[in-house]
Amino acid sequence: MDNISRQFAVIMAGGSGERFWPLSRRSRPKQLLSLADGKKTLLEQVVANISPHIPVKQVFLATGDFIAEAIRETHSDIPPENILTEPFKRNTAGCLVFTAAHLLARYGGDGSDITMAVFPADHHIGNPEKFGTVIKAALAVAEKESALVTVGITPNRPETGYGYLETAATPLSGSGSIPVFPVLRFCEKPDLKTAKEYIATDRFFWNSGLFFWRLSVFIEELDRVAPEMCMSLKNMAEALGNNDRHKAMAIFKKLDNISIDYALMEKSKSVLAVSGDFGWDDVGAWDALERTFPGDEEGNVTVGEPILVDTRNSIVYNESGAEDMAVAVIGIEGLAVIVSDDGVLVVPKDRAQDVRKVVEELKKRNAKQL
Amino acid sequence: MDNISRQFAVIMAGGSGERFWPLSRRSRPKQLLSLADGKKTLLEQVVANISPHIPVKQVFLATGDFIAEAIRETHSDIPPENILTEPFKRNTAGCLVFTAAHLLARYGGDGSDITMAVFPADHHIGNPEKFGTVIKAALAVAEKESALVTVGITPNRPETGYGYLETAATPLSGSGSIPVFPVLRFCEKPDLKTAKEYIATDRFFWNSGLFFWRLSVFIEELDRVAPEMCMSLKNMAEALGNNDRHKAMAIFKKLDNISIDYALMEKSKSVLAVSGDFGWDDVGAWDALERTFPGDEEGNVTVGEPILVDTRNSIVYNESGAEDMAVAVIGIEGLAVIVSDDGVLVVPKDRAQDVRKVVEELKKRNAKQL
Repeated sequence: MDNISRQFAVIMAGGSGERFWPLSRRSRPKQLLSLADGKKTLLEQVVANISPHIPVKQVFLATGDFIAEAIRETHSDIPPENILTEPFKRNTAGCLVFTAAHLLARYGGDGSDITMAVFPADHHIGNPEKFGTVIKAALAVAEKESALVTVGITPNRPETGYGYLETAATPLSGSGSIPVFPVLRFCEKPDLKTAKEYIATDRFFWNSGLFFWRLSVFIEELDRVAPEMCMSLKNMAEALGNNDRHKAMAIFKKLDNISIDYALMEKSKSVLAVSGDFGWDDVGAWDALERTFPGDEEGNVTVGEPILVDTRNSIVYNESGAEDMAVAVIGIEGLAVIVSDDGVLVVPKDRAQDVRKVVEELKKRNAKQL
Repeated sequence: MDNISRQFAVIMAGGSGERFWPLSRRSRPKQLLSLADGKKTLLEQVVANISPHIPVKQVFLATGDFIAEAIRETHSDIPPENILTEPFKRNTAGCLVFTAAHLLARYGGDGSDITMAVFPADHHIGNPEKFGTVIKAALAVAEKESALVTVGITPNRPETGYGYLETAATPLSGSGSIPVFPVLRFCEKPDLKTAKEYIATDRFFWNSGLFFWRLSVFIEELDRVAPEMCMSLKNMAEALGNNDRHKAMAIFKKLDNISIDYALMEKSKSVLAVSGDFGWDDVGAWDALERTFPGDEEGNVTVGEPILVDTRNSIVYNESGAEDMAVAVIGIEGLAVIVSDDGVLVVPKDRAQDVRKVVEELKKRNAKQL
């Protein structure tokens, strides 16, 4: 195989996205919302950003049963057999063991000929061109080095909502125009003081959740730090190779429900970070819209032609549009007002994370608007 | 005729009620909204409050074409011929000249046998029993005195949203347990300082918009201060007596579009005020709901089971109910959040009057949600 033909993209699209209620639902999670430009869904944007670099027939997509059909319809360019449905939620570690097993079963060998590029489905990339350059660099590093490669985002603010990577001070020799650093450790979301200390050092990057590795390296590292999970991967690949989906799913079901960071990345001694700066945003809550959408001169972000009177620094999102729903705000500041066809949320932007409390209450009520 | 059989109630139900957008519409103005208890409309409450005192077959209702049918259906106990539709908006003076002409045409004579009791359709009465006592007293005064009788509401706060009456310090002799005062002047809505001065004197009352007069007294006083309007009344009555509705409406169309306060009450020298204290509220804007609805312990008024998280002193009104629309607010204070099936309004309670700015914008847009 040449370089390109052995490169596979894996898009992790299993998220449930309750933080974007009332737009997000079980049947329409965050990755299926147009949260960055009001036109394309986040998932469509990811696919569009990847496809110039990895042929779409080599794009795999792992997602839940409940949205697989919607994704197949929207992304008819992705081969249907590449859309892998997870019957259970097993977090990102489960998702990557699951997709790695499929790749191994389908393309055989020890995985040394296969390079995986892993993309979350629900992040926003402000500068796709720079993003492409970093993808290419990260793929090259993954193919050359026996390491798990991630992308460390150059932070531009002391963000407390993201995890960080701490790297060595000196980049790998010969890493060229895009520096590549050994990763020393993964850091949880810091408090503001710690975040400020981090960004003052130039050795801390945001943890992007992007991963690049040869399949063989992934299997070896997994065997080193999580041998049971590695065994599950191999058994699952064997079952899939024998067309025994039932057995494969039984193995999948038994996987620990943990993140790949926790299962593998934080424990591995062979992690490299390619540094990147391409307008990355994890679109974590409603307030992210201020960063992804252009605002007006009063600092308001509006969607769907709401009527604003004396309003500043607010997000007013009318999903249905003015034709079906008239949304009007008067004299508010710093609020998010989100209107869907069967839900309304009003919350100060800096409490947008608390929407989970509303979702909890809706669950208690057994409400259909979940 | 005995006392009762010559007493007629006239309910003025022509208001358009844009201040209660998004609930109020051209086709569903304020008087047809359940703004006081969430169950009965304001108009239904007025009819219920009047009917123990004036037989329902003697209740007249003047309203616009656009809601007459809805009112006929809801108020099938009111004789259909008593529901008078105004083809043009001519304010309260026009409305009362119009209804007086109908009464005169229908019952003949000089009007001295007919007592009119005039009620706005869109106010709230907190204590119907006390209200009844005042109605009876005011009817008795109107039948005894050659004066226009109104009700002055004993103010319990320096309200700047109401007009006031200034009365003589001493009540009419023999006015019994409910004092009756000569009215010296009508006062526009005052600023806060003036309102405080008013209520410190015991000689100022809120202008309730309730009127009681013998039809003959109304005609005489009108002739004194607005002879053209009086002539229109008589001509309209004659045309109606001849079943010439076309001519009557032509006269109506030419009437000045002014309030009865401005056309008559402020200019008449024969105005008496019966003092009243029965939990009256003109339900002028969204913030009135705090006075008419019971609040929770955080000072919130809620309708339609919205979800409230860390919210205080707010009004959250979900007209559709939780089944159809999930409305949630987090961390807000002092806001009104009003949700109908095709409109959403978010406004600080103390700016509830500014909803007219939204209505103006909707008119500009030619929006169907008006």
